[in-house]
Amino acid sequence: MESIADIIDILGTIAFAISGVITATKKRMDLFGILIVATVTSVGGGTLRDLLIGKTPVGWLLNTTFVYTILVTTVVGVVFRKQLHYVRKSLFLFDTIGIALYTITGVQMGILIDLHPAICVALGTITACFGGVIRDILCNEIPVIFRKEIYASACILGGVVYIGLMHFGATAGVTAVIAGLTVIVVRTLAVVYELQLPSIYSQAEREEIN
Amino acid sequence: MESIADIIDILGTIAFAISGVITATKKRMDLFGILIVATVTSVGGGTLRDLLIGKTPVGWLLNTTFVYTILVTTVVGVVFRKQLHYVRKSLFLFDTIGIALYTITGVQMGILIDLHPAICVALGTITACFGGVIRDILCNEIPVIFRKEIYASACILGGVVYIGLMHFGATAGVTAVIAGLTVIVVRTLAVVYELQLPSIYSQAEREEIN
Amino acid sequence: MESIADIIDILGTIAFAISGVITATKKRMDLFGILIVATVTSVGGGTLRDLLIGKTPVGWLLNTTFVYTILVTTVVGVVFRKQLHYVRKSLFLFDTIGIALYTITGVQMGILIDLHPAICVALGTITACFGGVIRDILCNEIPVIFRKEIYASACILGGVVYIGLMHFGATAGVTAVIAGLTVIVVRTLAVVYELQLPSIYSQAEREEIN
Repeated sequence: MESIADIIDILGTIAFAISGVITATKKRMDLFGILIVATVTSVGGGTLRDLLIGKTPVGWLLNTTFVYTILVTTVVGVVFRKQLHYVRKSLFLFDTIGIALYTITGVQMGILIDLHPAICVALGTITACFGGVIRDILCNEIPVIFRKEIYASACILGGVVYIGLMHFGATAGVTAVIAGLTVIVVRTLAVVYELQLPSIYSQAEREEIN
Repeated sequence: MESIADIIDILGTIAFAISGVITATKKRMDLFGILIVATVTSVGGGTLRDLLIGKTPVGWLLNTTFVYTILVTTVVGVVFRKQLHYVRKSLFLFDTIGIALYTITGVQMGILIDLHPAICVALGTITACFGGVIRDILCNEIPVIFRKEIYASACILGGVVYIGLMHFGATAGVTAVIAGLTVIVVRTLAVVYELQLPSIYSQAEREEIN
Repeated sequence: MESIADIIDILGTIAFAISGVITATKKRMDLFGILIVATVTSVGGGTLRDLLIGKTPVGWLLNTTFVYTILVTTVVGVVFRKQLHYVRKSLFLFDTIGIALYTITGVQMGILIDLHPAICVALGTITACFGGVIRDILCNEIPVIFRKEIYASACILGGVVYIGLMHFGATAGVTAVIAGLTVIVVRTLAVVYELQLPSIYSQAEREEIN
């Protein structure tokens, strides 16, 4: 079980790092900039979570696997950046499995230090989503998940499922698997059917900004 | 006394969250984005202060009152977003009382861990102002208090008054009330008379950027 | 030795603060905004490092020398902002010596808490570079070191030299001096010969964004 989580973690790290490479190369950053953006996308969510709960030194300082994975991914990603769209589906899969894992890790850490269930769900969502938020801020964009991706809602739902199953006495393993699948299924359905959060803006309001 | 501070805290949280809702809806964010921006505006200053002094888990992780207040405020704020200007004066009042309270809380925390008076004033100002700074960064704007609001100067002044009164032996209660009133009066006068910090730029310099 | 490091630290703080003043006045910020940007440029890198490793309260909260240095530098910098280009070469010198010192301090702190050598180099680079990164984000720009400065590469190289010399048994003093000189020489050569990281973009790609 442990080793499966480790493998998912690496795959998620790769997928996140590549999303950083893609965003950074669009902005024509140099190699150093691309590396930093890839790193932040991968470890940013977990780092923010660790800082908020006071778990320091933060995770990636203690585990060079992530740093080396991100370094190699960045170099490979830059070299093959024109071919990245051929592996888009694999990347989406890794990415989605990655956010499922990060959501669960975040929720678990909250439970471990006795935080309120609602706060645990928030921690899970932060772990999964804030790498992308910081990536977009470094690239001088309004974070994309604040505007159109249903990504975060999948994490919130997965977190709620996790808390609910634990509350009703499910084992840790079953809980993690079902909550993780919830994230994966909701996100995949959202992307396949192009679902977004219901817009709160009228037609007129939307045109105003365009 | 405790319960008055609690009520002010809630009112301040509501006012800050609504300022987040207003900024985020202007950028046509979706519900999730609006919620995050509202949350960050409300708890961002206190969170940064807690991180800097090492008080973790940071405040809002331990108190769901804030999270629920922000959640309800966001939903109500979004639904009635076109009516928000009718309550602008009440919001300004809450907001101003809120920053007064946050300034004092920040200064007090600095004193509690024996920081230098000047650093305590900085902590108070950070607590009151950085929620808005992070809000503007998430919305891809240069923070408004860096450009034209006299908001921060009111906090600095209030902090200095607090430190001064304590130094001259005033009781904690009297000190808090007078320092808080200083923030409220200075900010209100600044807004009513449209005061800004004296511009350091010549007419030519100002036109250059426009 | 201690006092030389202290003097370098002050000179570096001044140089960093002035780079903040220059960036902030270009954006026509008011005095408060300029002060915050100057402060963040000076202490941002060290603050992020302290947060990541859990060394709180972070450094500048415990040492008012920095705060007063930044305050005075900001006021003087604003008053003489049109004359700043006359001292550009001195500023470049201070700035370069400053980043050399910050790199070494960061690497040393990593070693002190037994982090992996690669992570120590990362900590040194963060200490030297992230003040400027946060400055640019507050000013709503893509960080300049992500696009064209060879600044970060000099820090990484200096960090590697530091780790290497310690590994081969050099004394702490010799190691610090040689690693620091590495940063200074590499950066100076890069600026004098206008070196950049080799561009990864084709001519067509570069034109696309322009």
